[in-house]
This record gives sequence, structure tokens and C-alpha cells, in this order.
Amino acid sequence: MNINMLDRIAIAGVGLLGGSIGHALRAAGFAGTRVGIGRRASSLEAAVACDAVDEVTLDVEAGVRGAGLVVLCTPLGQMEQMFRRIAPVLKPGTYVTDVGSTKAGVVRMAQRLLPPKVRFVGSHPMAGSEKTGVEFARADLFDRALCIVTPTARTPSAHVRWMRGFWESMGATTTVLDPRKHDVLLARVSHLPHAVATALVHLSKDGAIDVAGPGFADATRIASGDPDMWTDILRTNRAAMIRSIDRLVAELNRLRSKLDRDDADALRQWLAAGKQVRDEWIALRYRKKVLPP
Amino acid sequence: MNINMLDRIAIAGVGLLGGSIGHALRAAGFAGTRVGIGRRASSLEAAVACDAVDEVTLDVEAGVRGAGLVVLCTPLGQMEQMFRRIAPVLKPGTYVTDVGSTKAGVVRMAQRLLPPKVRFVGSHPMAGSEKTGVEFARADLFDRALCIVTPTARTPSAHVRWMRGFWESMGATTTVLDPRKHDVLLARVSHLPHAVATALVHLSKDGAIDVAGPGFADATRIASGDPDMWTDILRTNRAAMIRSIDRLVAELNRLRSKLDRDDADALRQWLAAGKQVRDEWIALRYRKKVLPP
Repeated sequence: MNINMLDRIAIAGVGLLGGSIGHALRAAGFAGTRVGIGRRASSLEAAVACDAVDEVTLDVEAGVRGAGLVVLCTPLGQMEQMFRRIAPVLKPGTYVTDVGSTKAGVVRMAQRLLPPKVRFVGSHPMAGSEKTGVEFARADLFDRALCIVTPTARTPSAHVRWMRGFWESMGATTTVLDPRKHDVLLARVSHLPHAVATALVHLSKDGAIDVAGPGFADATRIASGDPDMWTDILRTNRAAMIRSIDRLVAELNRLRSKLDRDDADALRQWLAAGKQVRDEWIALRYRKKVLPP
Repeated sequence: MNINMLDRIAIAGVGLLGGSIGHALRAAGFAGTRVGIGRRASSLEAAVACDAVDEVTLDVEAGVRGAGLVVLCTPLGQMEQMFRRIAPVLKPGTYVTDVGSTKAGVVRMAQRLLPPKVRFVGSHPMAGSEKTGVEFARADLFDRALCIVTPTARTPSAHVRWMRGFWESMGATTTVLDPRKHDVLLARVSHLPHAVATALVHLSKDGAIDVAGPGFADATRIASGDPDMWTDILRTNRAAMIRSIDRLVAELNRLRSKLDRDDADALRQWLAAGKQVRDEWIALRYRKKVLPP
């Protein structure tokens, strides 16, 4: 996939992710027009000022018209409305993706609302941070990041290859997951950790946070994420979240019982096994830049 | 408190913390002798090689003899034995502290085992990381860090002032807490977060970790800590840990109920309140370098 096969790429929502896609497109040699679509003139001005996009518009339909690729970086709660608005305007063969953190609902909406001639493949680039806004966007945001592409049984494999190629040109490594499987796994490694971080902050409120240190700062960093975005994520992945909470509570109660009987060996083994799993993952993922298939 | 009032400072256990104390003493202008005490000749050689200490010994009694200050950076599980060994050798008026992550047990032991002429005040410098070993030690480890000093009702206030002065000369900001209160608060902001990080890693084992991203890496960083050290910490703070687990489980079940009834406002409010508490803490603690009293 060569991004210069396209003349025009529309990015709806030019914040941290959308802006970084704009920067990464330029860094990857994209010579066409990057169109930024937004809801506030001030954000769009900031996006142009830092050269994240070339053109901007408040008009969704005008923004996506003639685009060869549309990337929806809008909040999950606005996705349905976006699909409805762009559907009548897209030219046949347009690639469409989104960067939503939950996938089953979005993919189902896309299949229902977009015309068959449009090539939709859902995406979840695992990049970004608790920071929001185009001023934090950067061309290397996706370097070493994993992007999960979520086709369904009905998605042509050529479209999946194309979308993986797009993300790889952004610097990401890609993997493919069924949308529902994606949501189940992400509940465990992203949505539950987020909720737990928020819960830990709530437990620390009565003075304990005054003596918290760098470990607490790291463990709860994600709790500083955007509440509106995370409300959408938790709500659109409710069933998997509830199952994950139940699993965590069971794990914590097993720990409680080890503590209750002061079982040093069991505690050490549990801590050592956790350390080993994490250390191996970090080595595989971040040090050697090797990714699981 | 002027550290150059002392000729000789003994550091038992020259790893990340002990080594950083050695480096920070030199950086603060300490002109006397820094004695490193250890259990393995190879670690001690490494400590001398990187100039963390001036002299080393495997002999605890010889190491602390004549010291004006003894800092115990040994594991919690060895603390009792250390107190027993140094007690007969310390000269009257020697300051003694430890850097253990739980305090009630250590302080009780010190009061029972050290002679009254020795000036013991427990400490907990909130610095360090999941890394261990003198090779990660550095002079600025305590800069901007909080060090909690834990006297009892029987500790003369002059000794508390002296110990705070010592840690402030290491670059730390100090605060004072009763040892039991320390353990209750630290269970919430350090020991429970550690256990939760390990629990999250265990839940991620069946393939989910393959799609984990930077948020998971940060949220679980502490789970890569030393299992032996953390076994000691959890065991010496069992009662507070069990209460903290119960509180977290209750908080998670309240979240579960918000999810179960799909209460968007309650979810948003809960996430926003957590974000606000954390953001205010980070601003106070790390940006403006202002600390609570």
C-alpha cells in the first residue's frame, strides 16, 4: 500500500491521535492534501498552525468529499452520527477506518450505515496518553506502537491488507483481531486497568495521597485520561468490563486469603510469577521490538 | 544538621537506595568516610567501583563500629537480625535509621533491641523504582522525593529534627508520621497498588497481554519489583493490606453496579472526580514542588 495512491485524506477529529496521523502522513512522504474536520474553529486553527493538516473545515460532508481515505478520530459517542453523515457523500472505493478504543459496536454500526462500495476496516492504534489535544500530536506517536485492525468475516482480505499497510506506513506494527475478541482482551489490559487506577485514586482521597510516591503516580497515570472518552469506552464495553471486574475481585480475594494465612511462599510465588510475565512482555514488546503474531 | 559533624557513616545494604545515599552524601559535601556493608563481595566491589562508598566490609559489626550514623537498607526480613548485631557495637549517641517500606514492626524492633543511648528514628524515603542494584544508584534519587520520618511518642524531638535534616541534605522533602499511621496510609497508596498491578498482570496472562499498550506498561510497572522485598512488605503490613483490599473490592463493586445499570452520568462523575484528585496531586507534588505539611 502506497499512501501516495491517494490525493486526499480526511481526518475527522484533529486531537492527539488525528493530529499525529497528520504529522506522520507528512513524515511518511504523503504529498496529497490532509483535510482536518472538527467541531471547534479554534482547534482546527491550532491543527493548521502546527502543520498537522493542510486544510480544515467544520463541515463534515465537505471534508470527506473526494477523500480516498477517511480516518474517524471522533469520540465513540459521536461515531454513529458520523457514519450517517459521511455515508451519502463518500465516493465508491473510499477506505474508512476509526480509532475507537472499543470495536464491536463501531464495526457493527459501520456495516449497517456505510454503503457496501465503501471499504471499512476498524482500527485501534494503541498509542496516545492521558494528554489530549493537537498540541501534543507528533509524527512518531505510532512508532513501536501496536495497531489492532478488526475486520469481520465479511471484510475482504485485500481491504485488511490495505489498512494494515496504512498503519504500518504510520510507523505502527499491526495485528488482526475479531472486534468482539478485541473488546474482551482490551477490557483486561486497558479498560479494567483504567477503572482500577481511578478506584485507587478514590481510595487515596482521605489524606493517603499526600504520602504517595512515584509508584502511585505511574500506577494511576491513566486515571488522568479524558472522563468523557472513558465513559464512552466503559459503556460500550460493559459486558466485558463486568466480567473483568469479577475476575479481578476473585484474584484479589485469593491474595487476601494468602495474606490472611500469612503464607510467605504463596505470596512470593504469586509476586514472582507476575513479575516474570510482565518482564518477559516488556522485553518482547519494548526492548527487542518483537511482536507476537 | 550538618553532615560534616560526622566522620563516618555506615550504609548496610548498598543497592539502589543505599548506593544513592552514598552518592548523595558525596554530592552534599560529606567529607568523611562512607562505609558500605553487604553480604556479597561482588556487590560491594561494584559499590566501590562506582564510588557509592569509600570502604566496604562483609562484617556488620566492624562496619558500624565508630559510625556516627548507621543507615539500614537491608530487607525488612533481615532487620531484626541487624538490630541484634549492631546493638552491642554502636557508640553512645549514634543515629540509626532504616529505609524499610513498612514501619510499625521495624520501629517496635528498634525500640526493643537497640540500647537507649542510641538515637533511632525510622525513615521511609519514597524513592527508587522496580530496578534494584547499585548500578542504578544516583546522587539525585531523593531530589523532589518525599521521605517520611516515623518517630514514636518516646522519640526526642531533637532526634526527629536531626533525622529530617539528614534526609533534607539528601535532597528529599520530609514529613512526620506515626509508624502505624504510616503503614495504614502506605497500604492504600503503595502496597495495595503494587498488589493490584500484580493481579492485573495475572489476569492478562491468557493472551490479553499480547495486545497491551503503554497504559498497561505504566499501570503495572511496579509489578516488576523484587518479589522477596514485596513479600516482606505485604507480610509486615497484613492487617492494613486486608482492609485495603476489602475497600478496593467495595469500590469495584460500586463501579460494577454503575456499569450494570449503564449509568452514564454516574460513570462520568466517578471518572472526572478521580482525574481531578490525581491532577491536583500531580500539580502540587511534581510541578510546583509544593508538598503537604
